[in-house]
Order: sequence, then structure tokens, then C-alpha cells
Amino acid sequence: MIEGLKIATGNSGIKYKNRDDLLLISFENSANIAGVFTKSSMAAASIKFCQKNIKNGKAKALIVNAGNANAFTGKIGQEIVQQTAKKVANELNCLENEVFISSTGVIGEVFDYNLITDKVANLVQNSQLNDQSWRKAAAAIMTTDTRVKISKKTCKIDGKTVNLVGIAKGSGMIAPNMATMLSYIFTDADINSDILQILLKNAVDNSFNAITVDSDQSTNDTVLAFATKTAQNSTINSINDPKIAEFSKNLNELALELAKMIVIDGEGAQKLIEISVNGANSVENAKETAMAIANSPLVKTAIAGEDPNWGRIVMAVGKSCYEASSDKLEVKIGDYILAKNGERNPDYIESEVHNYLKNSNVKIAINLGLGLHSFTAWTCDLTEEYIKINKDYRS
Amino acid sequence: MIEGLKIATGNSGIKYKNRDDLLLISFENSANIAGVFTKSSMAAASIKFCQKNIKNGKAKALIVNAGNANAFTGKIGQEIVQQTAKKVANELNCLENEVFISSTGVIGEVFDYNLITDKVANLVQNSQLNDQSWRKAAAAIMTTDTRVKISKKTCKIDGKTVNLVGIAKGSGMIAPNMATMLSYIFTDADINSDILQILLKNAVDNSFNAITVDSDQSTNDTVLAFATKTAQNSTINSINDPKIAEFSKNLNELALELAKMIVIDGEGAQKLIEISVNGANSVENAKETAMAIANSPLVKTAIAGEDPNWGRIVMAVGKSCYEASSDKLEVKIGDYILAKNGERNPDYIESEVHNYLKNSNVKIAINLGLGLHSFTAWTCDLTEEYIKINKDYRS
Repeated sequence: MIEGLKIATGNSGIKYKNRDDLLLISFENSANIAGVFTKSSMAAASIKFCQKNIKNGKAKALIVNAGNANAFTGKIGQEIVQQTAKKVANELNCLENEVFISSTGVIGEVFDYNLITDKVANLVQNSQLNDQSWRKAAAAIMTTDTRVKISKKTCKIDGKTVNLVGIAKGSGMIAPNMATMLSYIFTDADINSDILQILLKNAVDNSFNAITVDSDQSTNDTVLAFATKTAQNSTINSINDPKIAEFSKNLNELALELAKMIVIDGEGAQKLIEISVNGANSVENAKETAMAIANSPLVKTAIAGEDPNWGRIVMAVGKSCYEASSDKLEVKIGDYILAKNGERNPDYIESEVHNYLKNSNVKIAINLGLGLHSFTAWTCDLTEEYIKINKDYRS
Repeated sequence: MIEGLKIATGNSGIKYKNRDDLLLISFENSANIAGVFTKSSMAAASIKFCQKNIKNGKAKALIVNAGNANAFTGKIGQEIVQQTAKKVANELNCLENEVFISSTGVIGEVFDYNLITDKVANLVQNSQLNDQSWRKAAAAIMTTDTRVKISKKTCKIDGKTVNLVGIAKGSGMIAPNMATMLSYIFTDADINSDILQILLKNAVDNSFNAITVDSDQSTNDTVLAFATKTAQNSTINSINDPKIAEFSKNLNELALELAKMIVIDGEGAQKLIEISVNGANSVENAKETAMAIANSPLVKTAIAGEDPNWGRIVMAVGKSCYEASSDKLEVKIGDYILAKNGERNPDYIESEVHNYLKNSNVKIAINLGLGLHSFTAWTCDLTEEYIKINKDYRS
């Protein structure tokens, strides 16, 4: 339970009929806030609004709608954001720049902002926090997701118990008609927003920025962290404060759990694939190689077919890491070494690896033999179901 | 007909049983040669051998096997290349560094080099050039290709008739068990190898390097051009010689025709998609954006579903071109403008674009509105059949 915040959900009618598609989270006192956003040059109106507001480091409310991304919607899109912020600020008696807005869904279609603003007063009135609230919140932001994504952690700062709760949505970077990976993380810890930003960025780099379903980046991707400061720990003001180590570790774990939930819920996915690249010259190099393997349709279809086709892994290393040398490369699937010293490992028994690949969690490990840096990425297998979902006509 | 060369095909027994999988092309006098190769750091033994030999600019023979890529095969792989070159040089009474070798097929499996070398004498003996030769040559290098790929051109240099013939193979960058895009272009023109290299590089940049089936680059990709110098034009020794303009244009067209044949034969492909990016700040920028659209699984599945889902095109522009601005972007499918001025074009009628997408040739055109540079890429749609082909277990 995070004290100092309230949750309300409702239906806007923008796209969905018989489910909640609006989420309002309000903070009794201003929460400290940090955020990481899509790098897309086609970023939605709400992204630009949040990026401007986050510089102040204070949040009074978060409002999210699912079913329409409000991206590539021109002046009308900006108007939707402005009117929403105005209405929420009015109802909560705060500044518009303390309101944070996200949208997820179809790109390029406008809607009437009254569909949101008309519901705000009611949402404010019905705000509460009980055992059902987080599940309702996580469900209200879903688009093509097949399951809610929630993670909770508890740790200590300064002898005081501190709670973290995170929710997320996403199953394709852009789903049939929908868009986007969104995640919101809440804590009662008293942490200054600059420090929260550093910790969040670090957590995102190794979780939400280490996953791929289909290599496509959305116009609306957003991760926000809010700190309500109700845990009564002494304020964390320095990144070097040793008291934050345990909190940082828990934040990283929570972000990674949510990120993996997104991959497992990837469109058509049957298997979670972990790809570790070790022995790289730099972290960037390790990441580029790991993501090339994670994004290779040929690797992903081979895993779907439970085929230890390590030649395709070698291919992906070759096309992404020009410093790599076949003489130094080692390729492992699970605990099996398939290739080393520039050749197929003569000792590996293919039927054993084929059996291993029947698991729903699969590990691929590369050692480049070049240096001491590493990176781990997560992806899912690529199945006919992904194609079926994504080639279905929108209407 | 290219004078000064002979063709022979045969069966090696390495993988295929009832078809030719070996190609030998020999040149009566040394041909001038130019080449472009994969950038993969996992390049096959034959690639490294060709890269070394091509510095001399002279070719006496080309030998290609299909069914095994001889990649990631260590010392045994190098031995296969050395023994093959030795045997061919011996039979043709030339130097080993005048022999060029390509392999395409499964990665990481060794084979007995005698399967090739035992056939060489017979291939040399049966070498000829008749109406069937090119078709046989193009068929012998196929792996998962469903059709032979040949293009022929005739032009003039210096008043003399000059011929060009090109063959190619490739249908996935790495097919189920196979690998690679290969192309060989032959001309009787008398062109110095340095000039041929410049012309070939230029042709490849806008053809073989402008196509993608699945974004995966092979360990064995090779394009070689051979000039037999039998057309009796005065030797071309300068890139500024105006006499080569027509030849260069024909070479470009031939390379592009072969490249498009590869895309159309892409695994599971039903549609050829042309993606033009105009109004870019630089050619590199235009190419990066065009290839991001061409490689986006969400764009490719939308086209498979004949869905004018232009939001996905906007997404791909956003993730690849950080200078892009939604206010300046124009998105066209066929002759229909779908989005401009930061918004959906209110005049476009979706059913018309849906009808247009029923064609087997589809054009997407982007104008970034930033500058004067452009690039055109080609890809195919992404269907369930691609997944089916590639997840089939190798055995």
C-alpha cells in the first residue's frame, strides 16, 4: 500500500464499450516525479506535454486513456491534451503543469476531448485506494494485452519500510490498432526527483530498454516514477547516499519483472528468450549484439520451432558486431555449448538441445571473447499468431 | 551471349540429390573482376579467399556450391577452399588466386572437399556455352529459391555492341537451412577492373543493398562482376570516360532487376513493396528511414493484410529519423496522400487505398520535407508462410 495517493478508473467511450479505459491517479500532496520517454520524432502530444512538465519535478495527478494514442493528430491532438490538463487541474485545485497525461491506442485518429473531460469530476469523486485498486488501474490501461501487469516490492531505507508498486501495459510495440509500452511506478519513499530520475533511468536501461517484441518503437512509450514521500525516511538528496542501494536494487527488479511480463505477453509469443552477451569491448557493443539476436526474425522463428539452429545466432552476431571473430566466439543455448573455437562443438548432442528448447523459458548466451562487458536482453519467439494478429484489418 | 567464357553444372552430393548444385564458369583469357561482399564479421572462408584474390583484378574461374555455406567451419572450412582452388587451378592451368569460390547453404556443418574436387575435371570437360547454359547456371546456385533469376541487357560502348548477363539467388537472407544472396554479372565489355569495381559498387548500393526480406544479413553474401573483354570496344580506363554512361545505366538496371527478383521470391512473399523516401537531409538519412519502414514487421504485416495502416509507417519514420517533424511529413500509398501537415489527410477515402493494396506491386512514398535527398528500398510483405518456412525444424 502506497499512502498519499488515490486511484479511480472509468469508461470514456472513445473506443472500448464494456470496460474501463480511463485511469486517474491523484496525489494528496505533490509527488516527486521522474520519467523516461520514447525517442520517436513522431512522439504524441501527451509526450511533449509530460516532457515539459517533468522539469518541475512535481506531480499532482496522472491521467491515462487506452484505445487512442492521440499521436499524429495535429492541433486537435494538442487541444485534447490542454483541455484534459485544464479540467484535471481545476478539479484537483492544482497547476496544469502538475498533471501528467498518457494515451495509448490507434495512431492518427482524433476524438472529442469531452469524452475525457466529462468524466474527470466523477473520477475525482470516486478516487480511493483499496485492495482492488492496483488491479483495476493496470486493467484500465490495457489495449491488446491479454493480462494485467503488476509488480510489488518492499524494502527498507533508513530503517523505515518503503513500498514500491508498478503497473505496465504493452504486447507489441504497436499492436494491431493500438500502440505503446506504458509503465507507472509508485513509491512512498522520500526521494528527491533528481535522484529518482537517475535511479529510474538506470532501471529502465536494463529492463524496458532491454526488451523487444518486434523491434518497433512506439510514438507514446512512457515510464513514469512517482514518490509520495509518506514513508517517513529521511529525504534522499544524493546519489551517493548508501541508504538507497536496497531501494535501487528493488526498483531494478520491479522494472525488470514488468518488462518481462510485457515480453511474455508479446503478440503470439509462446516462449520468453533471454539473450546474454558477454566478453564484449563495451556495454554498447554488447547491447547492440544482444538486440540484433533478439530482433532477428530467423532466430525467433527457429526458437518457435524448437530448433537449435545456432548458425542463425552466428549470423546475427556477424551482422551486428564487426569486431567479433569466429575463433573467439562461444555460443550456448541453456547449458549446452554449441559452437566454440570457430567450429561446431563436436561434443554437443542436438536432440538434447532440441529437448531443452521445449521449455517456455529459453536462454541463449554468447561470449564474444573480446573484453569484459556484458548486456542481457529479452525477447519472445515469432509465431504465425503474431502475423495473424497484425495483418488483421483494423476495422 | 558473352564470348570468352564457358559454363558447366553438376551434382556434388553434399546436400541435394536429384539436381545440379555445382557451377563452374571458366574464362578463356583472364576476365577483369570486381566484387562486393558481406560485411559480416562471421564471413565464410570462401569470402575471405575471394577478398584476397580480387586485389589482383583477374579471374580465370568461378566455382559455386549450393547446400552448404562452409561458414563457421574452422580449419576444415579453409581446407575445403584451398583444395577446391588448387584443383580448379590445376585443371585450368591457372594460378590459385585467379579462382573465385562461393558457397551457400547451412552454416556450421563441414563436408568432405572431395565431393567438390572429384567433380572438377568432369565440369571442365563438359564446359560449353549455349542457349540453356545461363538457365542451368542460375538453377545450380539455388537453395530455397522457387525460381531462377536471370537478367540480360545489351548496349553500346564506342559503337560496339556490349552484352551483360546476370544471375542471382536468394529468398531469405538466411533461409531455413540455407544462406545467402549471391549474384554474378558477366559482360564482354573491355573495362579495367578498377573502373568495373566503381560501377559495380554504385549498382549494388541501389539494388542488392536496397532490398530486405527479413533484415538478416548472411555470412556469404557476394556480388561479383566479370568482364571478358571480347566486345572489342576500346578499353575503358577512366571513370570519367563518357562512353561508359550507357553501360553503367544498363548495369544498374540489371542489378536492380535481379534484386527485385530476390525480393519477389522472398520467403512467403505475396507482394513487392517499393518504399521511396524523399526530402531527406542526406542519402544516408533517406536510406535509414526507407530501410526502417522496409524492415518493420508491423508495416509488412499491414501490407500483407491489405490494410492502409499509415500510423505504422509514421511510427517507423519516428523511430529511424530523429530530425523528422510530423508537421512536414507526407505519407503516400500509391497515388493517395494519407497524411500531411501533421494530420490524417481528411480527403482520403480508406476503401480506395484498401483496394489499391490488393495489387501485387505496392508503392509507399514518404516526403520528410527536410532536404533534397532521396533513397528507394524494396521489400516484401510478411506472411504466416514466412514463419512456417523458417520455424520448420531443419532435419
